[in-house]
Amino acid sequence: MAVGTVLVTGGTGYIGSFTTLALLDNGYDVVIVDSLLNSSKAALDRIELICGKRPTFYQVDITDEAGLDDVFSKHPDIDSVIHFAALKAVGESGEIPLEYYRVNVGGSITLLRSMAKHNVSNIVFSSSATVYGDATRIPGMIPIPENCPIGPTNTYGHTKVMIETVISDHIEAERRKAKKAGKPFEQWNGALLRYFNPCGAHPSGIMGEDPQGVPYNLLPLLGKVATGERDKLLVFGDDYASKDGTAIRDYIHVLDLASGHLAALNYLREKKPGVKAWNLGSGRGSTVFEMIKAFSKVVGRDLPYQVVDRRLGDVLDLTANPALANEELQWKTKLTLEDACADLWRWVENNPKGYRQDPPAELLEKLKASKAVKN
Amino acid sequence: MAVGTVLVTGGTGYIGSFTTLALLDNGYDVVIVDSLLNSSKAALDRIELICGKRPTFYQVDITDEAGLDDVFSKHPDIDSVIHFAALKAVGESGEIPLEYYRVNVGGSITLLRSMAKHNVSNIVFSSSATVYGDATRIPGMIPIPENCPIGPTNTYGHTKVMIETVISDHIEAERRKAKKAGKPFEQWNGALLRYFNPCGAHPSGIMGEDPQGVPYNLLPLLGKVATGERDKLLVFGDDYASKDGTAIRDYIHVLDLASGHLAALNYLREKKPGVKAWNLGSGRGSTVFEMIKAFSKVVGRDLPYQVVDRRLGDVLDLTANPALANEELQWKTKLTLEDACADLWRWVENNPKGYRQDPPAELLEKLKASKAVKN
Repeated sequence: MAVGTVLVTGGTGYIGSFTTLALLDNGYDVVIVDSLLNSSKAALDRIELICGKRPTFYQVDITDEAGLDDVFSKHPDIDSVIHFAALKAVGESGEIPLEYYRVNVGGSITLLRSMAKHNVSNIVFSSSATVYGDATRIPGMIPIPENCPIGPTNTYGHTKVMIETVISDHIEAERRKAKKAGKPFEQWNGALLRYFNPCGAHPSGIMGEDPQGVPYNLLPLLGKVATGERDKLLVFGDDYASKDGTAIRDYIHVLDLASGHLAALNYLREKKPGVKAWNLGSGRGSTVFEMIKAFSKVVGRDLPYQVVDRRLGDVLDLTANPALANEELQWKTKLTLEDACADLWRWVENNPKGYRQDPPAELLEKLKASKAVKN
Repeated sequence: MAVGTVLVTGGTGYIGSFTTLALLDNGYDVVIVDSLLNSSKAALDRIELICGKRPTFYQVDITDEAGLDDVFSKHPDIDSVIHFAALKAVGESGEIPLEYYRVNVGGSITLLRSMAKHNVSNIVFSSSATVYGDATRIPGMIPIPENCPIGPTNTYGHTKVMIETVISDHIEAERRKAKKAGKPFEQWNGALLRYFNPCGAHPSGIMGEDPQGVPYNLLPLLGKVATGERDKLLVFGDDYASKDGTAIRDYIHVLDLASGHLAALNYLREKKPGVKAWNLGSGRGSTVFEMIKAFSKVVGRDLPYQVVDRRLGDVLDLTANPALANEELQWKTKLTLEDACADLWRWVENNPKGYRQDPPAELLEKLKASKAVKN
């Protein structure tokens, strides 16, 4: 019997798919809703290839309340939600903010309404380190602890802060209401996971990030430079106050991030703490130039880049202080930047078209022979 | 010909109806959308009685995008929106936060989407002093200036901050986009009006606040104590750090508030400043006990009250520094607390059932004879 059943919104996306894999690997049943706006159903095949189990899938947008209601009705065993579904391009969020507010904030309100109707009261929310904005503005806040003042510098970050607030207010109101009525108020719990820069891929080489359209994160872009699909990497600003002038980020391997979600979910189910925020990061900051160097080393040659203007809303340093998650969730990152680079390169080399093409047959044979995959 | 045509959301509500009156009195045409959830169509009759003009009315909820689209399509002459429609009970917002987020935040996103589709690009938004939260937490911030850090202490306040952010991001994005395309970017403008405690009624005695259900603001409650409909006033806390222990608020006569909206709208249309926030308040703080005394004086007898616990989310002092609005909008309050108390009492005495009953025939005759009303 399953440990529990989790609805994963955005479960075919990058972090959603890896978290689904971690959940299935740890005895949970998973139901996914995803609009497929920026992801592919092929992620389901890869998940099944790797772990031998397939999540249930519905193509439902989180702004579609009737669609969500229908999924909850069909799966009364769902006891928790991990909520990834969102628009996530920082630059685009400054161009079409209304759409970001409608989908991210409006969609989260809709999801919570539907959860409430179906008595599902645990939610792990995919927040972001961008809620802190430019933490260097406040002395002593790098690496960033959870009590760093909130102050996002872009619309994407604003949506994350708003959703954190909506979840917190809702859960606290439900707890007060249930407590007053003498009902079990402890069932309402929320984890706000503020994560830093997810990167890397599955070590098998058959599962990774596959953004539709132009990617906007550093490592996927470097991957496309390495394959020749892009002629150079654009570095947004080399006039930051870092050692080499480029912006500092805390890169976290997607497998570590997925295990962080699992740890948070287990914590909610066991400790029933109400609403809590945790940073998921390595605690180690790397500059853009350091990342270029690390990835170039894995690829075996120097990758071309060009320095251009800073991007609107970008900040100098986003390095996590992950002490709270280390302690309370008994979780910490295990994989290195070198692991992430090697895994990403294996993914990119074997899947130049991402999920739009099957992985090489010889790779699959090798993986099956070595029992690195279960199916 | 009209100066312009304004869509007023929530135009049958308290402040919405007085602003509609001010707009009509100043040459604007007005189209109202209102759900009538907490207001009455009778407000339209009173507006017409007083000024001789009747706004166009549609019963449309701001969360209904097709309904809004239909209104904009029928009225291509609408060039600006004054946006009041919202759930507004602070206490209730802590009990059903999701509904507040859905209606207030979701509804505002929907309204802006519909405006964008119909090229309506001026918005005056009914924000609130509650966005500042407990300004006494920061030295030197009473009376409160617009640059006081934002920090609401309740869900209602959170919704106002979120809507301010959505409007700001949207207008700034549209300006950037239009500027880049060489188009007239100045057409996108927004006024965030943070107002303090609206009170009072029309001096004619036929138009005022008529909340459905139990009122939750001080003067309307005092009115109901004076008529005997309620046996006493509940005073929420007398242990605040004020001179008499009760909370301090900046009461502003609804006629002054309405003229502030008109001033902000004219400013947007003339100066095209982008997005700006203004406090609308008198700059004078009064305690609950002072208000009881002032209203008792108008009524001619002491009104009974009982001190109970503080309300969740209430703060010590919300007094405005209205210098910016005084200067930029060339607007300031003209009416006193005594005016507000006298006008409210005239409204309550003549309309014990609010808009559910016509005003006394002799009052109407008298008003017509003295030309205090135009119809």
